[in-house]
Amino acid sequence: MSETVKYVLDESRIPKAWYNLVADLPRPPAPVLHPGTLQPVGPDDLAPLFPMALIAQEVSTEREIEIPAPVRTVYRQWRPAPLHRARRLERALDTPARIFYKYEGVSPAGSHKPNTAVAQAFYNKEAGVRRLTTETGAGQWGSALAYAGATFGLDVQVFMVRVSFDQKPYRKAAMEAWGARCVASPSRETNAGRAVLAEQPDTTGSLGIAISEAVEVAAQHDDTKYALGSVLNHVLLHQTVIGLEAMAQMEMADAYPDIVVGCTGGGSNFAGIAFPFIGAGLRGGAKPRVIACEPAACPSLTRGRYAYDFGDTGHLTPLVKMHTLGSGFIPPGFHAGGLRYHGMAPLVSLVQELGLIESRAYPQIACFEAGLQFARSEGIIPAPEANHAVRGAIDEALACKRDGQARTILFNLCGHGNFDMQAYIDFQAGRLTDSPYDESALQSALAALPKVA
Amino acid sequence: MSETVKYVLDESRIPKAWYNLVADLPRPPAPVLHPGTLQPVGPDDLAPLFPMALIAQEVSTEREIEIPAPVRTVYRQWRPAPLHRARRLERALDTPARIFYKYEGVSPAGSHKPNTAVAQAFYNKEAGVRRLTTETGAGQWGSALAYAGATFGLDVQVFMVRVSFDQKPYRKAAMEAWGARCVASPSRETNAGRAVLAEQPDTTGSLGIAISEAVEVAAQHDDTKYALGSVLNHVLLHQTVIGLEAMAQMEMADAYPDIVVGCTGGGSNFAGIAFPFIGAGLRGGAKPRVIACEPAACPSLTRGRYAYDFGDTGHLTPLVKMHTLGSGFIPPGFHAGGLRYHGMAPLVSLVQELGLIESRAYPQIACFEAGLQFARSEGIIPAPEANHAVRGAIDEALACKRDGQARTILFNLCGHGNFDMQAYIDFQAGRLTDSPYDESALQSALAALPKVA
Repeated sequence: MSETVKYVLDESRIPKAWYNLVADLPRPPAPVLHPGTLQPVGPDDLAPLFPMALIAQEVSTEREIEIPAPVRTVYRQWRPAPLHRARRLERALDTPARIFYKYEGVSPAGSHKPNTAVAQAFYNKEAGVRRLTTETGAGQWGSALAYAGATFGLDVQVFMVRVSFDQKPYRKAAMEAWGARCVASPSRETNAGRAVLAEQPDTTGSLGIAISEAVEVAAQHDDTKYALGSVLNHVLLHQTVIGLEAMAQMEMADAYPDIVVGCTGGGSNFAGIAFPFIGAGLRGGAKPRVIACEPAACPSLTRGRYAYDFGDTGHLTPLVKMHTLGSGFIPPGFHAGGLRYHGMAPLVSLVQELGLIESRAYPQIACFEAGLQFARSEGIIPAPEANHAVRGAIDEALACKRDGQARTILFNLCGHGNFDMQAYIDFQAGRLTDSPYDESALQSALAALPKVA
Repeated sequence: MSETVKYVLDESRIPKAWYNLVADLPRPPAPVLHPGTLQPVGPDDLAPLFPMALIAQEVSTEREIEIPAPVRTVYRQWRPAPLHRARRLERALDTPARIFYKYEGVSPAGSHKPNTAVAQAFYNKEAGVRRLTTETGAGQWGSALAYAGATFGLDVQVFMVRVSFDQKPYRKAAMEAWGARCVASPSRETNAGRAVLAEQPDTTGSLGIAISEAVEVAAQHDDTKYALGSVLNHVLLHQTVIGLEAMAQMEMADAYPDIVVGCTGGGSNFAGIAFPFIGAGLRGGAKPRVIACEPAACPSLTRGRYAYDFGDTGHLTPLVKMHTLGSGFIPPGFHAGGLRYHGMAPLVSLVQELGLIESRAYPQIACFEAGLQFARSEGIIPAPEANHAVRGAIDEALACKRDGQARTILFNLCGHGNFDMQAYIDFQAGRLTDSPYDESALQSALAALPKVA
């Protein structure tokens, strides 16, 4: 009964540097291309959108990038995040597996997103930026940037996809509590928004449109820059504090994962937990199986093409090489809104191409079943996005039971579901479906991918 | 920039015993009276509602009561809860005060309530109980008991005040995610509920009615007991882990509070933070000022009478001596639903009578202003209840500024506001009022207090 259920590191053990997987990969990432010229972009091309410090991180090949002291000071409010041993879940599953989860829901915004939001806000403040723009779908990222902006004294403007804006007033209220301005996208505040509204006044919006709006505002104002919550190398870099802490905590538990599991939408929380372990394997250490769990309704890793594509619908962003369903692909409206993105982070895409990770796609009902089982055994109600990782971890634990193997499983519980209870209401009322995507729409979107030599 | 902002204790420092203030008080609490005979109740009178272990705690005069190992194991999921130094708030206020807050929102249910819910579920499970009934207003307590029931394998039935049931579907969904059954009160499942519905079919319910329903179900079923989330001695006892941890953490910070602040509804979170400090003072240690902050719309400590009263509307519960507004007093519908109770915990009432604490009442708009200032500086959006403590702490910090005194302030941030964002929406839209209570209704309710010799 005095079994250990939580591993807490001292504040002094918050990582002093982020880990850059690029340093250990056998080949470099494909270059980012200018949307007009299709030539590799240079720092100057990105300067209207990002401060130089972040652009330098985006292309860095250094293994370790120091975390500035003011960022670590803010991290200390909730980091090191706890690592839990899921003993009650193990018993409920009657599995010989040992299940550990890293819990990122302890941050003020309730997810892993502040790990990069705080860093981005810091570098922008240092560069004299006054305002940040961004987009948000489910609202996790917009909340995190609103919180980070409040911390460093930056104005924040969030373009929130119209359907979420209407369905999730609590997320908007949280952003406003932190002092951000949150507008529904498409809005009348940008050319991109007005163009969409002229054609489709009743549109529910999309993440691609919201990105176009946020990028447009940043590009047009000298005191304003743009912040992205996933996909880009520097965003994934900041999230590696998750895996670096988890490595130290697994050592406290006298264990090392045989299997590492994360959910993937844009790829940032998955990279955060997985990249430090993948890197350790590339440097000669143990090589756990690493499993990316994505929604079957938006399956970029399992059904997408590894190709150059735009990050947004309006084709204002540079082109990146990634697993993509096509920037014209509109996924059905399932509940894990944070995973509804047509592309996958270029670095996550590359490690899949290199055979360093596995990926699988889960329909949402199976994920909510896993989330509810987790809530009833471990007490935390996961975010719908995190349920994909819970499903993956439970499936691996059940495989251990079938095989009679006591493997060690580590997964990232990237956020709580406190702001997403409508999804659980719908699930428990039997109103959820698995909302498959439209195969012909996917084929059309793939056929429309930009032609890059 | 490397300033300390959080004090985390090792798991081994979770208290091994709860602290019972009764052992150190100069006089014992007044006896609890049977509602029929008006004679002091004995253990047998309470046995239909509570297991013997909790009845023994209710009347114990021992200073320390050991926390069972299985309870400490569950506590370890989130305890020790962090103590934070509110450095950004201090700077925003430009105060010489040092402000510390104990943060109980890290529990799975998001408040301090699981500290007692877990203990109550454990003792009931040990006693062979199969089901617990309870009432909930805002939903914090119902959520906590649902979580605790899932942890120990007990069925939980929650009678949720109709108005909250309708207004807070997310709270209900959380209880159901943990496997509890949540019904609107008044319900058709009890005599008490049916009687109210027969007279007032459209009633919005009240905590007093919901208590009557939960008590009735427990009293009528051998396998079912009742659980209360505040007010009673054993509930306050379980909450003292808050203050005991905070004492150790203040020592880490090389500080001791000059002022301890908590919000009060039934009194449990306030007792949790305050009683260990009051007790230390009674045993010859430093005596901080201790301030209870209650809602001006339901001001039991500042406007209530210290007298015997019932805990519920239906007068099914025993009578306790407490500061009460009268069991017939219906407070206006302000947003801190967890503080809408006509009475104050007998032990909190007694320490006020003994001059060991101060109390003050705050209108809700001033509290939301404080909560928003806190969210923008410290990043955590407080529960509306907790905003009363935030207001009290900020006012003391501003007094320090006026006086030029660098006092040390400790307050309990008893929960986050993730499930209460509608209140912030209303506040930010300017739709909140200070909803004063009806003075003549208060006088009538006081006049109707039971006559006890």
